[in-house]
Amino acid sequence: MMIDPSASLGSNVFVGRHAVIESGVTIGDNVTIGYGAIIRAGTTIENGVSVGDLTVLGKKPTGNKKKAVKPPSNLPPLVIGEGASIGCNCVIYLGVSLGADVLVGDLASIREFVSIGESTIVGRSAVVEPHTVIGRFVTIQTSCYITSNMLIEDDVFIGPCCSTSNDKYMGSGREAHQGPIIRRGAKIGNNATLLPGIRIGERAVVGAGAVITRDVPPDSTYVGNPGRPLTR
Amino acid sequence: MMIDPSASLGSNVFVGRHAVIESGVTIGDNVTIGYGAIIRAGTTIENGVSVGDLTVLGKKPTGNKKKAVKPPSNLPPLVIGEGASIGCNCVIYLGVSLGADVLVGDLASIREFVSIGESTIVGRSAVVEPHTVIGRFVTIQTSCYITSNMLIEDDVFIGPCCSTSNDKYMGSGREAHQGPIIRRGAKIGNNATLLPGIRIGERAVVGAGAVITRDVPPDSTYVGNPGRPLTR
Amino acid sequence: MMIDPSASLGSNVFVGRHAVIESGVTIGDNVTIGYGAIIRAGTTIENGVSVGDLTVLGKKPTGNKKKAVKPPSNLPPLVIGEGASIGCNCVIYLGVSLGADVLVGDLASIREFVSIGESTIVGRSAVVEPHTVIGRFVTIQTSCYITSNMLIEDDVFIGPCCSTSNDKYMGSGREAHQGPIIRRGAKIGNNATLLPGIRIGERAVVGAGAVITRDVPPDSTYVGNPGRPLTR
Repeated sequence: MMIDPSASLGSNVFVGRHAVIESGVTIGDNVTIGYGAIIRAGTTIENGVSVGDLTVLGKKPTGNKKKAVKPPSNLPPLVIGEGASIGCNCVIYLGVSLGADVLVGDLASIREFVSIGESTIVGRSAVVEPHTVIGRFVTIQTSCYITSNMLIEDDVFIGPCCSTSNDKYMGSGREAHQGPIIRRGAKIGNNATLLPGIRIGERAVVGAGAVITRDVPPDSTYVGNPGRPLTR
Repeated sequence: MMIDPSASLGSNVFVGRHAVIESGVTIGDNVTIGYGAIIRAGTTIENGVSVGDLTVLGKKPTGNKKKAVKPPSNLPPLVIGEGASIGCNCVIYLGVSLGADVLVGDLASIREFVSIGESTIVGRSAVVEPHTVIGRFVTIQTSCYITSNMLIEDDVFIGPCCSTSNDKYMGSGREAHQGPIIRRGAKIGNNATLLPGIRIGERAVVGAGAVITRDVPPDSTYVGNPGRPLTR
Repeated sequence: MMIDPSASLGSNVFVGRHAVIESGVTIGDNVTIGYGAIIRAGTTIENGVSVGDLTVLGKKPTGNKKKAVKPPSNLPPLVIGEGASIGCNCVIYLGVSLGADVLVGDLASIREFVSIGESTIVGRSAVVEPHTVIGRFVTIQTSCYITSNMLIEDDVFIGPCCSTSNDKYMGSGREAHQGPIIRRGAKIGNNATLLPGIRIGERAVVGAGAVITRDVPPDSTYVGNPGRPLTR
């Protein structure tokens, strides 16, 4: 392994073979870093964290010549909160804040400028895009796609394979991007589709496979394509 | 690379640079282990197996503080059957049994307590959850999500991106989880959605994009959202 | 790291720790190869390319005993065009041609015999199957599944999580596989499902979550399951 001499490691830290820890990385006590994991500069890992094998932490965003987007400069650090557990083969960018006891599954990726509250789960192979805020005790199941500029409040449950979007005009650049807003305690069934800017009210339920094209009121249940109130 | 002296390697075994083989691992003859692959303790690899680069075998489940779930102890080994082929950047847990000639695509992951029969294919980026039984000569296409507590019988075909679920009440903990049961020879179209506990009968066909909310009888074809019998 | 002496590296090439560069690989000037990346024989990387950590380039296809498919021999090289950017934990096969300034997101995979035009984006966790041709300035968003034998013309936009298929009879081997054909400038909403051989006309729009079972004429908009023309 390769540990930069300027990195700071607490006590009882296990670093797996072939791991790389770059300059200035800070690692607390009782931390496990898996084999071949890459901890890039700008990453802070708090006490009791476990990082899986072959995971990349602290990746810098790349630019996008097609859209003439330059990578953001002066990104804040990546902070992995106390007791969090990160899977294997994940990619987490600089500028992400993971609360205490967050669980990130294998093969998941999380882009820059994302905040995730304590005890939230990001499932395996899930993807979280930039500039999204996710609350506490949220479950984002396996293979979900969480677009950018979303707000997901506390205690939300999002089933496997759900898909969200934020760009009504699909790449034409005509409008600011706005992802869905999912209010506290709402539940989204597996493989549901949420259109840009949709609001899902508190404790609302979206059925599996539903395609949600307009706002869903609190405490209501929507199913179908297009999504309509469930009539029993 | 790092090979623990207590690991047992057969003849004609190639181990790629920067691979890690932990204590007690058993590897048969004519096996290829890719660059940077991680073979953790408790893994048995039979003759003629190929393991891709940067793949993790024998991962131990982590606990889940949110749900007060402790990781299972005394997991059985991970056994990779003769002639199986595992892709690159995969993650396969302890307590999995892969039959002879199973093919696992790149970036796939398979959790603990899963049994997969001979010559079955698990596509790239597919995910298989714990406590699921998959038969022989099954095709699980790319990016499928196979939930926990499912039964998939022999000769089933599941198209790309299919999504399954096992929790009718979405995280409320009100009911035991039961995934779909897919009987022999059934075929599921791409991006179909199966609700918890649904039974798909023998040789039944589910159309692409269908949302299956109730049982599908044998030899029938269901399409649409919600899924209904196809009328020609 | 391990660099085969027969590999050719240009000037100003950074190779990350624990990377592997096999025999005969050609790398241009001003190239960055991430930590632990695996560059296999038969790969050519042009000037100004960036390759992420733990990415595998130049993988050879494996055979498939179930379908009695032998891996193709005499594959052409993998060519990564000038200025392209490849994410972390990707897998790209031999026989792929990526044009200049192509961007491939983290955890994506691209199979053999695929050609991708300049400045096209392949999103994170997206999958591209063999024998597919993708034009210039195309956006394939995160977690899309692009099946084999597809044609995607220039300036197409495919939203996140879209799913395509190419096998009307689902594994029965009764018919040649033909994926969808998406004409210039068409836009596909997120989590849409396209059936085998469907043609999407120029500048047509497919709504999010739509299931497209027949051809979509140019300049039209289709939504729903099954997909029908949008009536305003």
